[in-house]
Amino acid sequence: MARTHKKVRYSPERKDRGHTPASAAEGVEEALKVLEGRWKLVILFQLFDGKLVRFSELERAIPTISQKMLIQQLRQLESDGVVRRIVHHQVPPRVEYGLTDWGEALCPALDELLKWAASREDFKGASTSER
Amino acid sequence: MARTHKKVRYSPERKDRGHTPASAAEGVEEALKVLEGRWKLVILFQLFDGKLVRFSELERAIPTISQKMLIQQLRQLESDGVVRRIVHHQVPPRVEYGLTDWGEALCPALDELLKWAASREDFKGASTSER
Repeated sequence: MARTHKKVRYSPERKDRGHTPASAAEGVEEALKVLEGRWKLVILFQLFDGKLVRFSELERAIPTISQKMLIQQLRQLESDGVVRRIVHHQVPPRVEYGLTDWGEALCPALDELLKWAASREDFKGASTSER
Repeated sequence: MARTHKKVRYSPERKDRGHTPASAAEGVEEALKVLEGRWKLVILFQLFDGKLVRFSELERAIPTISQKMLIQQLRQLESDGVVRRIVHHQVPPRVEYGLTDWGEALCPALDELLKWAASREDFKGASTSER
């Protein structure tokens, strides 16, 4: 009843090769590696939906993060190809951060994870183990 | 063009309250916590699609995992409500592992993460930062 997706679609369907359980796990791990880091998800959720945000705005939006840590997390996200740094050549130069297209494309996956975490209570009781 | 999902749906739509960037990040972190652990994803991908698998079958399917580690990862997944342990009362007792309904419901999210990781190359070049 609650099981709407009966089968993980890690078989072909897309142009890429079919997956074994091991290669599917590896692919997901690759995605998760990009998200690792205490602040990366918060930063991503600040930038989704095409937002362009200045460093100082991010600092204000995430008051518990240190400046050093914010710089580090942004650099890692940038080097992973998720965040882009836009320098406006004016005096003084203005720097903004936004998501790359690939970064924006992460949206549906995070959305599904969020829905899944939130659905935990809905499944309680329905799926206790036999003993 | 490549951006099919313009907006992360962490606003209402579902019965739960709307999300701020911070609460959305927290929700996703909650989901990711369940997946942390060197072998959990491989185990999950062995069990998706309603499979019921014996301990010895899992050992054979993941030959690089130690018995101790497999036991530990299964126990954590069980205590997180993702995996269920089914004891068939026969002589000798037969034990199988499968996913709970909530565990099966993780499928679409992992599928999206997998697609996202695989799409990295498609986005290359399209989204370099201005300099």
